[in-house]
Amino acid sequence: MREFELISRYFKGRGITRKDVKLGIGDDAAVMNVPENCQLVVTTDTLVEGVHFFKDMSPRALGHRALAVNLSDLAAMGAEPAWISLALTLPHADIDWLEEFTAGMHEIAEYFNVQIIGGDTTQGPLTISICAKGTVPKDKALTRSGAKNGDWIYLSGPLGDAGLAIEAHKGRFDVRPENLAKLKQRFEYPNPRVAAGQVLRNLASSCIDISDGLLADLKHILSMSMVGATINVDKIPVSQALAESLTEDERWPFLLAYGDDYELLFTVPEDKKGMLDLSLRQYGVEAVCIGQIKGTEGQIELLNQGEKFTFVGQGYQHFAEE
Amino acid sequence: MREFELISRYFKGRGITRKDVKLGIGDDAAVMNVPENCQLVVTTDTLVEGVHFFKDMSPRALGHRALAVNLSDLAAMGAEPAWISLALTLPHADIDWLEEFTAGMHEIAEYFNVQIIGGDTTQGPLTISICAKGTVPKDKALTRSGAKNGDWIYLSGPLGDAGLAIEAHKGRFDVRPENLAKLKQRFEYPNPRVAAGQVLRNLASSCIDISDGLLADLKHILSMSMVGATINVDKIPVSQALAESLTEDERWPFLLAYGDDYELLFTVPEDKKGMLDLSLRQYGVEAVCIGQIKGTEGQIELLNQGEKFTFVGQGYQHFAEE
Repeated sequence: MREFELISRYFKGRGITRKDVKLGIGDDAAVMNVPENCQLVVTTDTLVEGVHFFKDMSPRALGHRALAVNLSDLAAMGAEPAWISLALTLPHADIDWLEEFTAGMHEIAEYFNVQIIGGDTTQGPLTISICAKGTVPKDKALTRSGAKNGDWIYLSGPLGDAGLAIEAHKGRFDVRPENLAKLKQRFEYPNPRVAAGQVLRNLASSCIDISDGLLADLKHILSMSMVGATINVDKIPVSQALAESLTEDERWPFLLAYGDDYELLFTVPEDKKGMLDLSLRQYGVEAVCIGQIKGTEGQIELLNQGEKFTFVGQGYQHFAEE
Repeated sequence: MREFELISRYFKGRGITRKDVKLGIGDDAAVMNVPENCQLVVTTDTLVEGVHFFKDMSPRALGHRALAVNLSDLAAMGAEPAWISLALTLPHADIDWLEEFTAGMHEIAEYFNVQIIGGDTTQGPLTISICAKGTVPKDKALTRSGAKNGDWIYLSGPLGDAGLAIEAHKGRFDVRPENLAKLKQRFEYPNPRVAAGQVLRNLASSCIDISDGLLADLKHILSMSMVGATINVDKIPVSQALAESLTEDERWPFLLAYGDDYELLFTVPEDKKGMLDLSLRQYGVEAVCIGQIKGTEGQIELLNQGEKFTFVGQGYQHFAEE
């Protein structure tokens, strides 16, 4: 199949059509209108076979996940997602695979009203790189650098499920089938916190999406905001599927150092705490307070039931073996 | 080396800083101001080792070329380039390679005043995917769909040099060293026609950059504009290096079906012909008229010295072997 037929067959004319897209797939570049008084927000995430997903992952899940992890970055900025560029490198043009992959991607794209405006299809080892674009009202973007002493630290949902799905797939943990199905769902079809991110624009002082693990990503907030933190590890929300699958000791690496669930980690000033619960619950998000910004700059103090707690481990790092 | 150190060492704080970038590398996403009364223009191009470049290509050239081919797409839209997202997949973090690669990319980025605003560094087979963003005054983007009967067809410069460099590298043609150096330069360090593209905004009726070969890319204009064309193949500009290396018969595939030089192909209405030469020459571009829009929709008639000419061949296609 020729590249151009391939592109037009699976992408052109599919999915939603946004009015702000003046020229979509089919020219040298796409042309869009950015709303007045808004800034452009841009993020890029790449998934490589064997590094970010297993060879046997379903192409539909892959299409979903590849877009979801990008939308999660936009959510962490409080941005409204709008346009997607897809760089898809494939070993060969497999029709069945493409049908499923694009179906998975179009489903989540439609749900969040984002349009695939272009990209590039090339031959090579399976790699999916997406550049997602969104908009945010001028100077309203959530960053990693606004946390202040005394702010409360929140999570948008339970952690560790996706990580346990990966480890169970590797055969390192035995998980009951019905629980494994739930955990796998969290890895394959992560739900980016897009609406929550936009609500947080007026409430949070800093925000990040957890892609490298709670501690690793919290450290990004601490270093950019020049503050320290105390985390009550017993307050970190845990799904029933994870709780039933692991002993308490086994849980910690999944809660503290696995990042594939794409929940938001954010800080909220004392005077906005009340407003927060009310606002997020409307969007089905049960945010949980897990600690507070305080203490020595760059340091994280961990407490378990009020007692000092030690955890040795770290987030996921590419090239970490070198 | 850890991914984060790697990113910050080679990208953060390097290169130019544009005032319209409110938040660059280092947060979940970048934030930019789009100028008022301008539209956003977005393109994506991926280079895969072994498919788009040879394993022995110098990393500096690769850094240049990866960005150049993207800027060429923006040029073909008449856009002013502004911001770059880089998805870089590397088998391992090789310091020397990264030094050279980023130097090559920063050089051309600086020259065209574009800022690398973010990206993703992942481990895997060498793949460079860039999403380039630029701006164009509202409704002024050059497209492939505006060519009209009677418009003249132009090229921004000679074709085939990069193609001959590739074929000589494969050992299929013998080229004198001094000529090979010139041809290689055109493949490794293509010069995107960024200024020319912006000048053409007010002159050309359609435009495309030649990445798949003159005939293949002309066909894109013809099908989008619903017109036909006559091309005088003897008018296609040829570099001295190519002329000295090939017989006339050997030239045709390079001139008509190789696309790696990234020249612009565009159409100009009769009443803007005079203005064109004057305007482009200021930017060192000697545009050459090679034909006219006329005849049957979608058809290309080739003439050599006024005589009917037949060429059987096609542009470069990924997956073409299937």
